[in-house]
Amino acid sequence: MSKIAVIGGGSWATALTKILSENGAQVGWWLRHKEDVQHLLRTRHNARYLSSVAFDLDKVLPSSDLEEVVEAAEWVVLAVPAAFVQNALEKLDRDDLKHKRVISAIKGMIPSKNVLVTDYVAERFRLPHERLGIVAGPCHAEEVALEKQSYLTIGAWDMALAEDFCQLLRNRYVKASPMLDLDGIEYCAVMKNIIALTCGIAHGLGYGDNFQAVLVSNAVQEIRRFVHAVNPQPRDLSASAYLGDLLVTAYSQFSRNRTFGSMIGRGYSVKSAQLEMNMVAEGYYAVKSIHELNKKLLVNMPIALAAYRILYEKVAPAVEIELLKEKFR
Amino acid sequence: MSKIAVIGGGSWATALTKILSENGAQVGWWLRHKEDVQHLLRTRHNARYLSSVAFDLDKVLPSSDLEEVVEAAEWVVLAVPAAFVQNALEKLDRDDLKHKRVISAIKGMIPSKNVLVTDYVAERFRLPHERLGIVAGPCHAEEVALEKQSYLTIGAWDMALAEDFCQLLRNRYVKASPMLDLDGIEYCAVMKNIIALTCGIAHGLGYGDNFQAVLVSNAVQEIRRFVHAVNPQPRDLSASAYLGDLLVTAYSQFSRNRTFGSMIGRGYSVKSAQLEMNMVAEGYYAVKSIHELNKKLLVNMPIALAAYRILYEKVAPAVEIELLKEKFR
Repeated sequence: MSKIAVIGGGSWATALTKILSENGAQVGWWLRHKEDVQHLLRTRHNARYLSSVAFDLDKVLPSSDLEEVVEAAEWVVLAVPAAFVQNALEKLDRDDLKHKRVISAIKGMIPSKNVLVTDYVAERFRLPHERLGIVAGPCHAEEVALEKQSYLTIGAWDMALAEDFCQLLRNRYVKASPMLDLDGIEYCAVMKNIIALTCGIAHGLGYGDNFQAVLVSNAVQEIRRFVHAVNPQPRDLSASAYLGDLLVTAYSQFSRNRTFGSMIGRGYSVKSAQLEMNMVAEGYYAVKSIHELNKKLLVNMPIALAAYRILYEKVAPAVEIELLKEKFR
Repeated sequence: MSKIAVIGGGSWATALTKILSENGAQVGWWLRHKEDVQHLLRTRHNARYLSSVAFDLDKVLPSSDLEEVVEAAEWVVLAVPAAFVQNALEKLDRDDLKHKRVISAIKGMIPSKNVLVTDYVAERFRLPHERLGIVAGPCHAEEVALEKQSYLTIGAWDMALAEDFCQLLRNRYVKASPMLDLDGIEYCAVMKNIIALTCGIAHGLGYGDNFQAVLVSNAVQEIRRFVHAVNPQPRDLSASAYLGDLLVTAYSQFSRNRTFGSMIGRGYSVKSAQLEMNMVAEGYYAVKSIHELNKKLLVNMPIALAAYRILYEKVAPAVEIELLKEKFR
């Protein structure tokens, strides 16, 4: 029986806990709030996310004691928003992750440092890259709760690690494939939130399906340029792990980034949109990190730049999308 | 003043007539039914499609006399369903298209012959390929009626022809780009209807956004294999003319192919779905043509094959989508 720690109480953490525990693993589930842990222990449901899912408490051990949860696990799955990673892992020291294999389910970058989550973890805990992986793929947590057919890709530097974690995920409605591309998948996952957010902005401004299709096509080319600059290796961006992940986020009603962007497009300020949504749209932070990172790389990234100017320099959304409109073909 | 014949009375013909005539061209507009011509002459609106659009009858000359309409034109734009092309052009002979430039706005193949519309026209009228082009791009007619920002690509063997027709299209809400790829764009446009239809089938069966994203990602790879086999030349399938066109069709509420597929997925027979929709889904015929064509090419095309088996061999949709599910990653 595999022992897994899932760190985070959001919808994706909840979906992964469902998949992993129903497959027979023992999941220590860290949730920040004691009352959420108590609600789980009392009712078998997460009060806040995917609340229809009932957990088997023989398999799932909710706790707000991070060290205890990590200590008991062979695998540590990180599933908090990127902006909270540093804070969430604060209490752990290097020895706590020694001999553990760490899988990031986070599609974002550490805001203050502008580095990928796996790079941050590798450095902070002196973990060799061979013990790190990323879960990606077109997979809305809400559809996992409904047990709709989903596909996940585990990106890693070590194929054996990727395949091992795939085996923990595979079930009747989840297919999982290993892939030797940790950085590319992770950067692509970060970028897709920016694209979904921009799709939302355009939608909020009244642009239609025709424009969105062109935006996404141009986005694939922008992501390819960027990922190639930051981590050159041959990869086919039309694989599910890249394109599929982008599509599900850019087109789906469940996407928080798209919803957030749509509010910006309709004239909400960043602050009021965040208050209204009462959750973090990863794309908001990603826009800044990618912008900072690209100051060195100097990749031609019109979409990411437009999103940056709208969100951080208060340029009117209509102006920036109009500029994009002229650049697209 | 350019003189253009638009052949067809459907929504796409109506949208193109709007764009071309509002740009100052004189458009002879052939509609099969005399009563539609009369309705247009009386009310300035097409009774059947995009009926909100009012036409300037100084610019638009509706007629049900095909020879007269073609005779007066330098450009002939074909915009009838692929299945009706042979019949619609029956009365024309070789000399009628001599010196004309012909643009196909049809995204399908001639059913009985399994050839592209432009190949059929080239052969039937002994027209050199240099005088042929295709209009493609992510562009729902319904959004053109609403003057939402749209992008078109003119694919041709002759860049000057493509650019000339682009100039006739460009306006405040339409961007048009020329591209030296007639066959690739046309085959891709045919394939995307098959994919949209299959997305509809999966949707009708209850598969969700996660699955659709994976289906579309796998479709891009399938289209790439096929188009490369049938017409090898370097092309970036993430361009709007290819990927954008696929996305707008596969994801949009306006897509007739997706709607048709969705009814098949929900258990309608082909016949009852066609009766219910009261219009032709191009994808239905394309599935057969591509299947026939691929008997020689032998490209690995699981999605097109699944659609063929469902529509023409009456295999249960659930069985075929289940098989696809296993093949995807």
